[in-house]
This record gives sequence, structure tokens and C-alpha cells, in this order.
Amino acid sequence: MATTLTILGSSSALPTSDRYTSAHVLNVHEHLFLIDCGEGTQMRFRQLKLHFNKLDKIFISHLHGDHFFGIFGLLSTLQLLGRKNELHIYSFTGLEELIKSTQFGEEFTFPIIFHNLQNSESEIIYSDNKIEITSFPLNHRIPTCGFVFREKPKLLKILKEKIKEYSIPINKIHEIKNGHDFITSDGTIILNKDLTLKTENPRSYAYCSDTIYTPDIVPYIKGVNLLYHEATFLENMLERANTTFHSTAKQAAEIAKAANVDKLIIGHYSVRYKELDEFLVESREVFKETYLAIDGLQLSV
Amino acid sequence: MATTLTILGSSSALPTSDRYTSAHVLNVHEHLFLIDCGEGTQMRFRQLKLHFNKLDKIFISHLHGDHFFGIFGLLSTLQLLGRKNELHIYSFTGLEELIKSTQFGEEFTFPIIFHNLQNSESEIIYSDNKIEITSFPLNHRIPTCGFVFREKPKLLKILKEKIKEYSIPINKIHEIKNGHDFITSDGTIILNKDLTLKTENPRSYAYCSDTIYTPDIVPYIKGVNLLYHEATFLENMLERANTTFHSTAKQAAEIAKAANVDKLIIGHYSVRYKELDEFLVESREVFKETYLAIDGLQLSV
Repeated sequence: MATTLTILGSSSALPTSDRYTSAHVLNVHEHLFLIDCGEGTQMRFRQLKLHFNKLDKIFISHLHGDHFFGIFGLLSTLQLLGRKNELHIYSFTGLEELIKSTQFGEEFTFPIIFHNLQNSESEIIYSDNKIEITSFPLNHRIPTCGFVFREKPKLLKILKEKIKEYSIPINKIHEIKNGHDFITSDGTIILNKDLTLKTENPRSYAYCSDTIYTPDIVPYIKGVNLLYHEATFLENMLERANTTFHSTAKQAAEIAKAANVDKLIIGHYSVRYKELDEFLVESREVFKETYLAIDGLQLSV
Repeated sequence: MATTLTILGSSSALPTSDRYTSAHVLNVHEHLFLIDCGEGTQMRFRQLKLHFNKLDKIFISHLHGDHFFGIFGLLSTLQLLGRKNELHIYSFTGLEELIKSTQFGEEFTFPIIFHNLQNSESEIIYSDNKIEITSFPLNHRIPTCGFVFREKPKLLKILKEKIKEYSIPINKIHEIKNGHDFITSDGTIILNKDLTLKTENPRSYAYCSDTIYTPDIVPYIKGVNLLYHEATFLENMLERANTTFHSTAKQAAEIAKAANVDKLIIGHYSVRYKELDEFLVESREVFKETYLAIDGLQLSV
């Protein structure tokens, strides 16, 4: 399955009847990464038929309630569903203690491993042979991180007939799978693309919420396939955006343009906006490939 | 407006896609009493167009997450909506500290007054000239209270023409408004019902969740107009009900019958039940006036 992003909540500080607070699910090869966990996240999981048992890791960008108040109920549900395998939670310090307090002395029956974020500089917070996850500092009223998820290139598949054709020895196979060309015994260079199956490029997704307009983040998110950037306000409320350390739709688009991403998705709308059309219009004036985050939306990265 | 009950959440420990966890709103003369506050309570408020500013008091029956995990987001929303007036929260000790922890040092801008429940005996936890609210012990795995809300009789309205007809002196008016008869100067007794407008009887509602089958509670809820009693399981899972300190639909009906209530509403269904028809059938065999709690259901008390 392709890498897909599902929006569980698109509202800012408080929910509306159909927009819940921040939560995204990134599905990478059937491993689910939950990014922020606003109230109602577990209901959205059920409504959108996402599988709790595929949930691997949770990333909490910052400790404002609209980004984590759903974690208590979610963990309780995982427990009641009989989860046994590890769950990793990445957040700023304070959440672990709070989660424990909600249990009033009862213990979880599955291991929860907490990882503390810091927002002084970017760091790789997770890496395996399939994905690398990086955090980087955003600029909000309290310590806040953005996250970049970058798939790693898969090993290439060699075309069997080429092994025969060029008499490729076994000890060269691994190099070719990793993208190298092959040099025959008579010195001819056979390009890798002529030896291997064409595969999909690894995909990348960046999450930036909450933050005031900060071009400093551009190097971290450069060239990602899909960028989510908060757009709490329209540009005519720029002053309010600045005082609350949030961004406008136009500013989100400017970041997307500067970072030269493929697609931008905006969200975290203030509840004052009943209709969202203007967000799209405003952002597309600067960056054409803009989409609106709406609860339940699923899009491929 | 008549006294009405709105069901915000009807599921037990974990929510389904359309059944959220426990929360009821009792509307008494446009004062809203919230009883339990499962995750998603504030979304239900919006979806059902209930007014946050009419919310007066919150009652938390016990400190299992499915009965209070919605309070953090709800309070945050009240704050963001600019609430200024007092909010009273009745719960077992521990919730106040937990709520403060979720704020990470930030203060609420409206006064929250916490009242500690105890479950050794029944007590009047609130009373004014319109309503009396009583808590009483339930029998669950942790300290748990039920609540009874009893409207007080309103002052009667005297028919103006009767004041003239019987030459009722001013100093007798108050007595008549309180239900007394009037004795004329020649010793004739004029019955109160012939002097006053007919008014609605005061209404009463009792909330019993979570609890194992406990006939001890009957005296506290005797004769209420509407009884909510949990029914987590059907009778064929009685053993499971007993070990988890919950009740079956049949047991809820038996309590309703013994307490001689007008109507019973059952809820807090285990997620194992997709369809709820059997709950109704089982309960109605014992107590005919049974209704099913369903999210969004509004019924007059």
C-alpha cells in the first residue's frame, strides 16, 4: 500500500461539531504513526476504520491540550483491547507523568516507552531500514516540534535475465541492489537503471503545527512530497496570528513555496471560520498545489 | 421548558464509532447539569446544540477514564469561550490535582469550585429553592456515587378572582402559595386546589452508573420519574457483570421495579454488542417502561 495520510482532526484550539482537534495518521507500509492526539482521536480511528493494533508510535508536537487530550482515552482503549506490544511516545517532558496520574495507580499491561523531545535543534528521533523520522524546532508559545518522515530507498530488484546476460557475480548483487552500476570484465559500464526494476521513489511527509511564520524551518522540510503546515487564520488576521504564534494560509503557502514541496495541506483552522474556501483561495495564490485538511480526508503522500 | 435529559454518550469503557463514553446532561429550567464527562462530551455539546454558558455544575460519578476524560477539553473550551462565572465540580478526590496538571502551570480565568464526594453514605450535595441534589453510594471497583436530582415544588399561583371572592388578606397569600387551604371568616374551608392554578409536579431523575446489582440503592431512588441505571451486559453474561462490578439489563429493570420509578433508561453497553434490541427485550420483561440510551437522545423527565 502506498504511503497515505489520514486527517483525524483539523480544528485549532477547540473543536466544532465536525472538526475535531489536531491528529494525523501516517500509514507507512501498514505501520501507523499518529501525529498529535487531540480529543476524539480514538473515535476517529473507529469511524475511519483504522486499526489500533497497527499503531506503532505517537508523536506529540507540544503540550497544549488540543494536541494531546485524546491520548488518555486512546491508551485506555489499547489496554482494554489487550495490547501486548510496545508503544513509543515522543513528546516534551511532562506527558509521561500526566498519563500515569490518570491511571490512579493502575499499571498499563503493555510497555509504553517515552522519548523526550527537545526543540533547540533538529535531531533524528527514529530510524530503521524503512524510515527516518526527524524532529525540528517550531516557534510557538511553548516548546514545540515539527516532524519529518522520510522513507528510505528500498533495495532495488535486479532483472534476472540481466544477471545471465552480463554474467554478474553474486558478490556484486548487493551493490547493484543499492543502486550501483556494474562494470563488466571488458570494462563496459552497465547503468543501474538498465539492470533493475523501476521502483517508486521513497516518499516524505512533514508536519508543522503549531508555529508562527518561521522561514528557519525551510531547510528541514526541503523538497518533501507532502507538507502539512498550520493555517489558523486568514491573512487579514495576521496580527492575531503573530500575537498567538500561529500562521496564516498565505504564510503556510510561502513556506511550501520556499521549501519547494510537491503538495501542501493546511489545517488547524480557528473556530471563527465556518467556511474554509477562502483558505484555499488565499494559499493557492502563492502555492497552487494546496489542499484543505478536513476530518476524514485520506490522501496519498 | 420542561426538565429534559440528553444522552451524550452511551458506551461503556471504550467508545464505538457512534457511541461515546458516559455523559448525560440534565436541563432543569435552562440550567445544565452535566453528569459524567467521557471523552467527546464537548463535541456532543456542539453537535446537539447545547449551550456551554448554561452549564452550571459537573458531577463525576467515579474516576474511571470513560467517565471523566472529556473534562480536560471541556474546561479548556469554556476558558477559550471567555467564561467568567463559577463552575462547580463534584467528584472524588484526585480530579482537581489532575485537572491542574493538564494546565502545566497556566491558570483558569474562571473560578472552579471543587466539591469532594464520599461514598460511605447518602448526602445532600446541593440545594437551592428549585432543586435538591443528593449523592448516594454505588458498588463498583472503586469509590462511586449515584446522584438524584429532585426539583422542589414551585410556589403556586393564586387565581386573582379568588382573592376578591373570598376576601383573602395579604398575610395569607404566602401560605396559600405554599399549598395551604384557606379558612374564611365564617369558618368555611376553601381547598387550595380551588384557589390556585394547576401546576406541573416537580420532576426527579436518578443516575446510577457504574454499579454491580445493589438493591441497597432502592431507598435513595424510590419513586423518581426517570431512572438511569447502567446495563453493561445481558443476563447471559451475569458472571462477567459480577466480576467487573457491572449490571445486566435484567438487573437494571429489577432495580427500577423495586424502586417503583415511572421510567427506566439503560445504557453503558459493552462494545461487544453491536445491536441493542435484546437489552430492551430483556429489561421490558421485568419493567415495561424501559428505554435505551442512545447518543443524542433527548427525553423529558
